[in-house]
Amino acid sequence: MSLVVVGTVAFDSIETPFGKADKILGGAATYIGLAAGKLNVDAKIVSVIGGDFPAAYLSLLNKNGVDTSGIKVVNNGKTFFWSGRYHNDMNTRDTLVTELNVLADFNPELPESYKNCEFLMLGNLTPAIQRHVIRQFPVRPRLIVMDTMNFWMNTAWDDLLDVISMVDVLTINDEEARQLSGEYSLVRAARKIISMGPRFLVIKKGEHGALLFNKDNVFFAPALPLEEVFDPTGAGDTFAGGFIGYLACSGDVTFENMKRAIIFGSAMASFTVEKFGTVGLQNLDMTELNERIRQFSDMVQFDISLD
Amino acid sequence: MSLVVVGTVAFDSIETPFGKADKILGGAATYIGLAAGKLNVDAKIVSVIGGDFPAAYLSLLNKNGVDTSGIKVVNNGKTFFWSGRYHNDMNTRDTLVTELNVLADFNPELPESYKNCEFLMLGNLTPAIQRHVIRQFPVRPRLIVMDTMNFWMNTAWDDLLDVISMVDVLTINDEEARQLSGEYSLVRAARKIISMGPRFLVIKKGEHGALLFNKDNVFFAPALPLEEVFDPTGAGDTFAGGFIGYLACSGDVTFENMKRAIIFGSAMASFTVEKFGTVGLQNLDMTELNERIRQFSDMVQFDISLD
Repeated sequence: MSLVVVGTVAFDSIETPFGKADKILGGAATYIGLAAGKLNVDAKIVSVIGGDFPAAYLSLLNKNGVDTSGIKVVNNGKTFFWSGRYHNDMNTRDTLVTELNVLADFNPELPESYKNCEFLMLGNLTPAIQRHVIRQFPVRPRLIVMDTMNFWMNTAWDDLLDVISMVDVLTINDEEARQLSGEYSLVRAARKIISMGPRFLVIKKGEHGALLFNKDNVFFAPALPLEEVFDPTGAGDTFAGGFIGYLACSGDVTFENMKRAIIFGSAMASFTVEKFGTVGLQNLDMTELNERIRQFSDMVQFDISLD
Repeated sequence: MSLVVVGTVAFDSIETPFGKADKILGGAATYIGLAAGKLNVDAKIVSVIGGDFPAAYLSLLNKNGVDTSGIKVVNNGKTFFWSGRYHNDMNTRDTLVTELNVLADFNPELPESYKNCEFLMLGNLTPAIQRHVIRQFPVRPRLIVMDTMNFWMNTAWDDLLDVISMVDVLTINDEEARQLSGEYSLVRAARKIISMGPRFLVIKKGEHGALLFNKDNVFFAPALPLEEVFDPTGAGDTFAGGFIGYLACSGDVTFENMKRAIIFGSAMASFTVEKFGTVGLQNLDMTELNERIRQFSDMVQFDISLD
C-alpha cells in the first residue's frame, strides 16, 4: 500500500549534553518517510525545500525508499531551519532558532500520482495546511493519521478542531491531550477527544511509553529503557512513521493491529534516539528491529492465573 | 507465610482538589499491612503510636488480618502526624505539617513471636531504624524488601547505603533512582544500584507504571489509566504491601513471580487512589481485584509474529 506524508523537511542544529550537530537533515516528514520506508512502504513526501537543500539528502531519502517527487523546490528560497538545545535530563529542550523560510508560503499541491494513496500521514504543521491536503484527495484515504502540538492549540484552535474532526487517528503527547480536552485524567481526556471525531487516539509519553485508545479499549505500550539517549529529536515522528508504515504495510486498520503498529513505532523510535539526527534510523536493519521488538514483548509479558 | 512490616502508623490530614480529610488513619505500615492482609498474609506491624490513637483504628487493622501486637503504645505521647496538600495535577504535593511526636524516639524491639518471620518489609523510615530491625532477626529473613526516599539520601547517606547493602529488593521512584546512582539512564541507574547490594530493584513511576530489574532482566508494569484519582496518599505503600504480600503468600521469590507481584501491587494501589485514605483498600474484595488484574493483562497484551 502507498502512503502520503505531509510535513517538514528541514535543517536541524542540535545541541545535547553529548555533543553538537550543525545543519543536519531533519523535519517531521523526513523521519516519518524514513521509518515507513524501512517497512517497505512506498512513502511519498509532500513538502517544500529551498535551493540550498543538498541533493545528497534527497538521494538519501530516495535510497531509503522515499518518493520525493512531491517536495517542491523553491530555488531562490531557504530551507526551513530549526535549532534546539536539550537539557541534561534529555526530556526538555529550548528552541534556539526557528526560521520558517520557504515554509512560510507553503501551500502544498499533491502530484496526481499521490492522489490515490490509501494512507495519509499529516505531520505536525499548520492545521489549515493539513486540511488543504485532505481536501485534495478525490476519494478520502482509507486511514488518516494526524500529528499536532500545543502551539496550534494556542494559535489556531478552530482550524485545529476542524482538522481533528476529519481524521481517523490523532497522535499527541499527554500534556497536549490534557490541554485539548481540559481533562486531567487521560481516560476522560481520551473519551472527550474521541468525541471530537478521531476513532483512535495515541497518547505519546516519551520515555514512559504510549497509550492507544478507541471508544471501548485501551492499550499501554512500554518504552524500552535505554542505556543511552543521545538525541531525542525525531523520536515522535519516527514513532508515527513506524506506526502508519506498519498499518499501510499490513493493510489492517483494526485496534488489534494498531497495538502491533505502536510496538513497531516505539521500537523504531528507540533506534532514532540512540544516534544524532536520522543516523540511527538510516542504519537500522530488520534483524535488529525484530530483536528489539522481542525485547519489548519479553519486557511486558507476565502470566497470572486467577481463580 | 508471615510477614513483618516496619513503618509508620499515623494520622494524616489531606487536601486534594476534590476534598479534605482531617486526622484520618495513615502511615506506611498501615497501607502495607492492609494490602498484605487482603492477600491473607499474616502481616505483623512494628511501629509506635501515642495514647491519642483510637482503638477503632487498631481494631480496623486487626479485622483486616493485621497483627498489631508489635505496635508500641506511648500513653503520654502523641501519634505521628502528617499533613499535605495535593496540587491540581495530583502528582505533586506540599507537606504542610510533619509532627514526629512518638516517632522521634522510636527504637523498635521485635516481639519474640515476630522473629521467625520469613518476609520483612522495611517501610520508609530512618535507615538506622531499618537496620536495627534487620539485626534483631536471629536468622536472616528469606526476603527483605526496603522502601526509602530522597530525604535520607540528603541526610543519612552512609546509613542508607549500609542498609541498602543488606536487603534483597529496593523500591524507590525514578528520580530517587537517579539521585542514588548519579545516572540519568534508568538502565545504568539500575545496574549501579544492584551493584550496591540488592538483587532486585523496583522503580516506581506513579501513573507511568513501574520497572523491575535484576542483573539480567527488566520488566515493565503499566499503571492502569484511571477515570478518577481522588487521593494518591498511600499508593506507593499499598503497592509495596501488595508486592511483598503476593510473594509471601506464594512463597516464590523468583523474578518471574515478582512480575506477578508487581501487577498485584499496582492493581491494589489503583483502588487506594480512588478514595480518600485507606477506604479504597479496606473495601476492596478479591473479585474486584481479579477483575482489575485482568484489565492490566488485557491492556498490555499484543501478539506479533516475527520472521
